[in-house]
Amino acid sequence: MPAPSPFLEERHVRIRSYLHDQGLDALVVTHAPNILYLSNHAGSAGIVVLTRDAVLLLADFRYAGAVGQLQTSPQACPGLALRDVPASYDEALVALLAEIGASRVGIEAAHLPVARFEWLRRTVEARKLAIELVQTERVVERFRVIKDAWEVGALRESAARLGAVAEAAFQAVRAGAAERQVATAIEQALRIAGFDRMAFDTLVASGPHSALPHHRAGDRILQVGDLVVLDFGGFLDGYCCDLTRTVVVGTPGPDVTRMYEAVRDAQAAAVAAVRPAIPASDVDGAARAVLEERGLGQAFGHGTGHGLGLDVHEEPRVGKPRPDMPAMVLEPGMVFTIEPGAYLSGWGGVRIEDDVLVTKDGCEVLTSVTRDLLIR
Amino acid sequence: MPAPSPFLEERHVRIRSYLHDQGLDALVVTHAPNILYLSNHAGSAGIVVLTRDAVLLLADFRYAGAVGQLQTSPQACPGLALRDVPASYDEALVALLAEIGASRVGIEAAHLPVARFEWLRRTVEARKLAIELVQTERVVERFRVIKDAWEVGALRESAARLGAVAEAAFQAVRAGAAERQVATAIEQALRIAGFDRMAFDTLVASGPHSALPHHRAGDRILQVGDLVVLDFGGFLDGYCCDLTRTVVVGTPGPDVTRMYEAVRDAQAAAVAAVRPAIPASDVDGAARAVLEERGLGQAFGHGTGHGLGLDVHEEPRVGKPRPDMPAMVLEPGMVFTIEPGAYLSGWGGVRIEDDVLVTKDGCEVLTSVTRDLLIR
Repeated sequence: MPAPSPFLEERHVRIRSYLHDQGLDALVVTHAPNILYLSNHAGSAGIVVLTRDAVLLLADFRYAGAVGQLQTSPQACPGLALRDVPASYDEALVALLAEIGASRVGIEAAHLPVARFEWLRRTVEARKLAIELVQTERVVERFRVIKDAWEVGALRESAARLGAVAEAAFQAVRAGAAERQVATAIEQALRIAGFDRMAFDTLVASGPHSALPHHRAGDRILQVGDLVVLDFGGFLDGYCCDLTRTVVVGTPGPDVTRMYEAVRDAQAAAVAAVRPAIPASDVDGAARAVLEERGLGQAFGHGTGHGLGLDVHEEPRVGKPRPDMPAMVLEPGMVFTIEPGAYLSGWGGVRIEDDVLVTKDGCEVLTSVTRDLLIR
Repeated sequence: MPAPSPFLEERHVRIRSYLHDQGLDALVVTHAPNILYLSNHAGSAGIVVLTRDAVLLLADFRYAGAVGQLQTSPQACPGLALRDVPASYDEALVALLAEIGASRVGIEAAHLPVARFEWLRRTVEARKLAIELVQTERVVERFRVIKDAWEVGALRESAARLGAVAEAAFQAVRAGAAERQVATAIEQALRIAGFDRMAFDTLVASGPHSALPHHRAGDRILQVGDLVVLDFGGFLDGYCCDLTRTVVVGTPGPDVTRMYEAVRDAQAAAVAAVRPAIPASDVDGAARAVLEERGLGQAFGHGTGHGLGLDVHEEPRVGKPRPDMPAMVLEPGMVFTIEPGAYLSGWGGVRIEDDVLVTKDGCEVLTSVTRDLLIR
C-alpha cells in the first residue's frame, strides 16, 4: 500500500514552498523514487511535473489503468492530472511545459543524463519557448531524508519482518550447503515474510569470499571453519530494509572470535553514538575508533552506513568526513544502516549491520536479530 | 562465468578502432552494463577508461579482491590496470585523465547525469587541463547490439532454462492461489534453474489485473474465469531472458479464446517476419496488422519488443516507426523479445512473449515453451 493522500499533500506543500523560495515555477522529476514519493506512481516509466497547483504525470498507455485505480483509492495523489505520452517522453515534456507557460523550470541534475538535458535545452531554444531550464539538486531528496510518520511506520514494519528471515538464513547455513542454496533459502523467506521484492542481490560470502565485501552468492560449498557473511533485505510497501549477520561454521578459533567481537563492539559503539545534531561522520568515527584500537583499522575499508527509504542507498552517507561533500548533521526521522566490517584478504571477514531511526535523544534500532556469534 | 579474455580483446579492438575514427583518445565508461561488457567488472561502483592501449578500472577498496581473482582467471580483462579510488570517483577520474595526458575524451552522454558532467567540465577547466570532454552516445551500445558467439551461447542457455520455470509457473496457477504465491513459485523455480537473479520483478496479473500490462504480483486470489498473465525472466552469467505466457483458470469462454488466438497469431506473424535487412518496425507492423484485423488494434498499446542482453531493455527497440528516432535495421546476432498483447480495461488481457535471435535468413526462437492456451 503506498502512502495515504494526506502525506502526499504535505510533501507537495513543503516542496512547493521550497520551489517558491528558489523562484522556480515547476520541477521536472525524472528520478523514479522521487516520482513515487510525490505521486504514488510506481511505474518503470513516467515524468512528474510538480507545479504550484498541480502534479502533472506524463505516462504512456501501459499505466493508464494503474493510475486510474490509484486515483479512486485512499492513496490518490492530490492534484494529479495524467497526461498520455503517445511516443517520446521528452517531446511530451516540452509540449507540456509550453502549454503550462512555466518560465523557470528545475530539472534533477543529479539524475537526468546530459544527453536528455541537452536535447531539452536545444528543443526549447529551437522552438523559441521562454523556458529557462535550471539545474537543481536535492530538491526532493532534502525532504526524503527526514521520514514522515507514515514512512517511519513502513520502515519499522519492513525491518521487523527481517527477524523471521534471519532465522531461516541461520538455519540454512551448514557445512556442505552451497552459497547459492543459502541465498535461495533467504529469498524464499523474504517472500514468505511478505516482501514484494529483494532490496538487492542477496549476499552469501563464505570462507575466503567473506573477505570480499561485495561478493554475491556462488557455487562455493560451506566448510567447517568458514565465516559466512549474510547480507539481505527486501522492499515492503516501497520501503526497504537491510541486514547483515556473520555466522561461523563449526567451532571458531580464537582469531575468529577476536575479529567478531571487534566488529560487534565497533557496531555497538556506532549505534550508541547516534543522536541528533552531530555530524553523520561521528557515527563512522565511533565504529572506526574501536576497530583501530583492535588493530583492524586497515581492514575496514568502507563507510559505516547509508540511508534507507525508497532507495536502498540514499542520504545520509555515514562515512569519513570528505572535503568534497558537505557534512550532514543528524536529525530525528533519519533512517540509515550501521554496518562496520573487517576483512582480511584470503582469510575472511565479518560484517554486522542494523537499521536505525534517529529519535529526539538517540536512536531506535529497527532490526531486532541477535548479534551474538552464531555457530552452525 | 563472465566472457573469456579473447572475447573482451575483440570488443576492445572494435571500440578502439571506432574511437580512432572519431578522433577520441579515450572513452570514459560509467554505465554498469558497458563496464561489464568491456572489463568483466561486475561491481556496483566503478569507472572504466578505455584508452588506445589500456583498460583503466577505477574502483574502491571493496572490489580489489574480486578484481584480483578475475585477473588470474581465464576471464581476465586484457590490458586491465586497477586504480584505487580512495574517496570520490570523479576526483579520481580527473586525476587519471590528467595523468594519461588524453586530450579528447568521450563521455557517455546517455547515461552520465548532467550534474556529474558539469562538475567534470568545470574541474578540468579550473585545473587548466588540456582535456576536451566530448559527449558521445551509443559507442559501446552500437557493438553490444550484435551479440558475439559467446554472448549468443549465454543467451541461448539462459532462455533454454526457462522451460522448467514455465512448467513450475503453470503448476502454481490454480483457483484459490494468490498472485504473490504464484510469483514466489516462479522465483523459486528461477533459482533452482540456476539463475543468479531475477531479470525484473516477476509479474502475475490475474482477472482484471491482466488488463494492466505492468501490474506486478499482489494479494488478489485467482478465480475461475481469470486470465492470468505470467511474465518473468532471470540473469544467467550476466545475460537475461524474458518470457510471458497467459493461462486461463477454468474453461475459457469464446471471448477469451478469440482474444488468445488473436494474440497468438499476432505473435507468430511477428516471429515469421524477422529476417536481416528489414527495419525492426516491420516486425512490430506484422503483429499489429493481425491485431487490427481482429479489431484489437486499440487494445495493443505498447511496442512489440525490446533487445535483450546484459540489460533487460536494450537495443533494438521493436515498435512503431518514430520520427524522432533513427530506424534500426535488423542484423544477424541481434536478440530481442517479441511480445504483442491485447488489453481490455476491467475485463482482462493476453500477452505472449518469446526471445529470438536474428540469423542469416530468419530467426531462431530461443525460448521453447508451448504457446497453446493452457487451462488450469
